[in-house]
Amino acid sequence: MTKLAARIAAAQTSIFKVVFPNTTNHYKTLFGGEALKMMDEVAFIAATRFSRKTMVTVSSSKVDFTMPIPADTIIEVQGAITRVGRTSVDVQVNIYKEEMYEEGRVLAVQGLFTMVAVDENKEPVPVIDV
Amino acid sequence: MTKLAARIAAAQTSIFKVVFPNTTNHYKTLFGGEALKMMDEVAFIAATRFSRKTMVTVSSSKVDFTMPIPADTIIEVQGAITRVGRTSVDVQVNIYKEEMYEEGRVLAVQGLFTMVAVDENKEPVPVIDV
Amino acid sequence: MTKLAARIAAAQTSIFKVVFPNTTNHYKTLFGGEALKMMDEVAFIAATRFSRKTMVTVSSSKVDFTMPIPADTIIEVQGAITRVGRTSVDVQVNIYKEEMYEEGRVLAVQGLFTMVAVDENKEPVPVIDV
Amino acid sequence: MTKLAARIAAAQTSIFKVVFPNTTNHYKTLFGGEALKMMDEVAFIAATRFSRKTMVTVSSSKVDFTMPIPADTIIEVQGAITRVGRTSVDVQVNIYKEEMYEEGRVLAVQGLFTMVAVDENKEPVPVIDV
Amino acid sequence: MTKLAARIAAAQTSIFKVVFPNTTNHYKTLFGGEALKMMDEVAFIAATRFSRKTMVTVSSSKVDFTMPIPADTIIEVQGAITRVGRTSVDVQVNIYKEEMYEEGRVLAVQGLFTMVAVDENKEPVPVIDV
Amino acid sequence: MTKLAARIAAAQTSIFKVVFPNTTNHYKTLFGGEALKMMDEVAFIAATRFSRKTMVTVSSSKVDFTMPIPADTIIEVQGAITRVGRTSVDVQVNIYKEEMYEEGRVLAVQGLFTMVAVDENKEPVPVIDV
Repeated sequence: MTKLAARIAAAQTSIFKVVFPNTTNHYKTLFGGEALKMMDEVAFIAATRFSRKTMVTVSSSKVDFTMPIPADTIIEVQGAITRVGRTSVDVQVNIYKEEMYEEGRVLAVQGLFTMVAVDENKEPVPVIDV
Repeated sequence: MTKLAARIAAAQTSIFKVVFPNTTNHYKTLFGGEALKMMDEVAFIAATRFSRKTMVTVSSSKVDFTMPIPADTIIEVQGAITRVGRTSVDVQVNIYKEEMYEEGRVLAVQGLFTMVAVDENKEPVPVIDV
Repeated sequence: MTKLAARIAAAQTSIFKVVFPNTTNHYKTLFGGEALKMMDEVAFIAATRFSRKTMVTVSSSKVDFTMPIPADTIIEVQGAITRVGRTSVDVQVNIYKEEMYEEGRVLAVQGLFTMVAVDENKEPVPVIDV
Repeated sequence: MTKLAARIAAAQTSIFKVVFPNTTNHYKTLFGGEALKMMDEVAFIAATRFSRKTMVTVSSSKVDFTMPIPADTIIEVQGAITRVGRTSVDVQVNIYKEEMYEEGRVLAVQGLFTMVAVDENKEPVPVIDV
Repeated sequence: MTKLAARIAAAQTSIFKVVFPNTTNHYKTLFGGEALKMMDEVAFIAATRFSRKTMVTVSSSKVDFTMPIPADTIIEVQGAITRVGRTSVDVQVNIYKEEMYEEGRVLAVQGLFTMVAVDENKEPVPVIDV
Repeated sequence: MTKLAARIAAAQTSIFKVVFPNTTNHYKTLFGGEALKMMDEVAFIAATRFSRKTMVTVSSSKVDFTMPIPADTIIEVQGAITRVGRTSVDVQVNIYKEEMYEEGRVLAVQGLFTMVAVDENKEPVPVIDV
């Protein structure tokens, strides 16, 4: 494994969460906005752990919520670096859902977040020091 | 104004918010995820007020955060229906930012949220009863 | 419209919110305290947008909760400047409630918040620079 | 002590809280709305502990915030029954503030909350069973 | 009463709280973690009010949750200093639970939190100035 | 790997989190109570994912906070099943901390949470169906 691949592997970030009724809509599924917030949080942590620089989100991709995430399920929000640019990285974020009281999991939501490294003057800086 | 146009006008939805330091990152700007969450919330309320049906988010468009939203600014998150389909609507969501202690505002973030009307069996239903 | 009237109009502030079961009491209506908190927040934003100074609440008026606000309704909390003094303003705050799945809205709660402009030494200063 | 006086004494309710910077405004004092929310919460608990019925807030009195409550102080929000009517009670709520790192406390905010006992049909019922 | 005993008595700290369904698990009882968080908060406030120094938690004792705390009960989390060392204090924290709509209370959870006084360099300092 | 070992491996649960200043005390370190709450949450999810039964916390072990967790660090809270009894499991929970802008991580806090499987009548049931 190259040094970069090792660094990408070490930056993988995961947040497990129980979907409680109080974060769901009237239809008893997780709000899209709650999912987007958690995806951005995981992207931020993964990008920071990869670069060890101050990272800010510059864009989120189109996100499809084709499969509802009902209350009383467990989700895992996983982030992994999929592109390393000069001053930015892409983080692929997947949400897996598991029934609380049954085996198995499915991939429920996917998105791509682009994060840029910035200095104190808000100017882009290299993601990795060379 | 047609009846539909009146209904669209009446559904316009707005949330003002102070960006406090505790919702900002290390760089003292609003997290992308917080902005996405508020945008989805406004889209949900606007779509519900338009249709008076149970609405769920099916997709969020690509969102660019080209302009940072620093702590101690006031934002207005505005949602307006821009397309009415048979079982879904599009809600354009704009975030305007204002300095707390200066005049003027700028359009800082834009996104499009597609919301679908569903019945109790999670099947799409017409957005407007005919 | 005079310059002051225009400034008052521009300062009008609105927050839409879904009343979820998790902000309601055992009786499934919004807590009075949640309503008071949102009313003060709207008053603070309206007063700040009017004066562009640091504003603090000096008093809230008697507030009557004669009409309950049940879970699964949408509310709009609206604030508007109704008096401009030398160092303070009054903000009238109204809460309108709408059924999520029916047309129509009613005025449910009203209150008056007095906000004063202060400098760094916590001394009152003119609300508007002359 | 009469039975009623004993019941009033037993219903006294207290919440201590550290005022953290994230609940304060730009001026570093507790938002009026946060204080009002805590006062209503204490009134609700005191009234419930007195009556053991479902209680709802029907009004809050005029509340003056003459003394600011800065970040990094400790507050105690105290509620006590001061009037027992047929279907309602008044709860006097006082907020005391203490410096974290100095002795002494002062009474900073006072308010009166009127709470009514209701049945499942939202009709007022006697506060105390006779 | 000695001066120390008076100081211990004055530092007693109490937080009443309604256990709402949104802080309970699928089984409708308060999460152990929510109870632990409130116990630490009460211990922190009691220790700070006793010493008027910056206090940090150094350990929590074994805590048994033998009795579940269901939704729609009222709890009181009480903290009292039980040992005063040179640079640390022990705070005994008890959680009492009351039915909302019945008389009586029971001791439901107990724990001991050890808090140490620290200076700006994170070095232990005497709890009480001599 | 035995079937039980595989099931234990599959139940491993992880939550990454940025320690923001608003969850830290005056001393700018994470509150003990916040750490305990996250540890219980991870234990609950790990135990649920192992057993697929309703789990409740019956005890938390003594927890030492010998190393402070300052603001602006990233933590990973990891839970793993370490004992499988008839009606209960033990979950070992470790908190690792990483500087945001430096490489490396250290084990900062450890605890053991015992979780029991219960049925609808709150009676213990076997953790694994045989």
